[in-house]
Amino acid sequence: MSREDLEARLRAIGAERYHDKHPFHHKLHGGDCTPDQVRAWVINRWAYQAAIPMKDAAFLSRCADPDIRRAWRSRIEDHDGGVDSGGGLRRWLKLAEAVGLDPDYVASGRGILPATRFAVEAYFHYVREQPLLQAVASSLTELFAPKIHENRIEGLLRHYDFADESSLSYFRKRLSEAPRDVAYGLGWVLDHADTPEKEDMACAALIFKTDVLWAQLDALWGAYVDGHVPPGAWRPGEGMA
Amino acid sequence: MSREDLEARLRAIGAERYHDKHPFHHKLHGGDCTPDQVRAWVINRWAYQAAIPMKDAAFLSRCADPDIRRAWRSRIEDHDGGVDSGGGLRRWLKLAEAVGLDPDYVASGRGILPATRFAVEAYFHYVREQPLLQAVASSLTELFAPKIHENRIEGLLRHYDFADESSLSYFRKRLSEAPRDVAYGLGWVLDHADTPEKEDMACAALIFKTDVLWAQLDALWGAYVDGHVPPGAWRPGEGMA
Repeated sequence: MSREDLEARLRAIGAERYHDKHPFHHKLHGGDCTPDQVRAWVINRWAYQAAIPMKDAAFLSRCADPDIRRAWRSRIEDHDGGVDSGGGLRRWLKLAEAVGLDPDYVASGRGILPATRFAVEAYFHYVREQPLLQAVASSLTELFAPKIHENRIEGLLRHYDFADESSLSYFRKRLSEAPRDVAYGLGWVLDHADTPEKEDMACAALIFKTDVLWAQLDALWGAYVDGHVPPGAWRPGEGMA
Repeated sequence: MSREDLEARLRAIGAERYHDKHPFHHKLHGGDCTPDQVRAWVINRWAYQAAIPMKDAAFLSRCADPDIRRAWRSRIEDHDGGVDSGGGLRRWLKLAEAVGLDPDYVASGRGILPATRFAVEAYFHYVREQPLLQAVASSLTELFAPKIHENRIEGLLRHYDFADESSLSYFRKRLSEAPRDVAYGLGWVLDHADTPEKEDMACAALIFKTDVLWAQLDALWGAYVDGHVPPGAWRPGEGMA
């Protein structure tokens, strides 16, 4: 299979399974979420955001080649930022404040759905334990991220009062960060997936990652759209500023 | 806190959070599940069953004291059984056959909901990585298992044609196995949780484990009761004998 064919195969996985297809995102971007549904999304998505620099650190910890580490390290910097300035995580907490939540509550991770935690931890363990090719390939959902972020910025600005350039700065910033990251990750995967077996491994990793994202939205839907909030999870009214 | 108080605190967690309270089990035991909902349960619960002897092996691998290993090892034997005779896993596959599924399909793990896999893996990683006290305490959901197994045997026999002593042998056998296991586990936790901090750790571990069980049923409900089957998961008609 040529590099172009493998890239097409990876992109087809996104076209079929990336979470821009999930009904929760249609609801969110279309302005049909209640304020509490938006809050539930902000609280739960924090689990994922907060785990990203840790999973990238786990990845770095496995790379004996300093060239990969140098290229990959910016992912941690993007999310954590400087001691004073902060980064993507702090921008996420601006969104939390904008929707009326106490940012300290959100940052504490309390109230996150267990299913969300389990999905995020599965991603962390995957990156820490699977062959490097799969660890890298699992990051390739970034291929599909700029489009969903553009749709999200546009949809949230149009439909929700809390949305402005400050509250949505996390997504705006990702529009320039994600393409640089994924260009490196995709190139690395296309270089290293040089047998049919490795091509399959790379695709399986990307499918795994789409499952991680999808499962988070399924959990959100079950709890806060269909109303089956599991024991211990956030309930409307909790964690407000 | 006395041993009795800690035991009462642990039992109160079960009374509040054990998955016998989940609406899916009411539906299942009350005869209100469709044949495909029963099949979805059998397929997905396999993920949990199949992981149990692996998590117990991970536990053994952390025990330097042969006395604990000797007491704990029967859990692996119960589920795996002998080379020819098989054990709990093979009994689970009898249930799979009885509900019309191909046992090889079920044993392959294909079609399992990603959220179920993530929950089960979270349990595995917890037992492998957390302090031993928490690893042991997370097994104490067995305190509440005999009651749900009795209700299940009775409910399934009353309401479903597939139910008989052969297809339900997994549950019948657990009625005698679980109490022996949990007597050891509970005693160990009560012996070792000898500070307030350790008591809290033991309770947190049991809460974690109830989350693992509950999340599996939430996923089942979302996919096969509310009908939001995620990409790649089992769909009715697949995996039949």
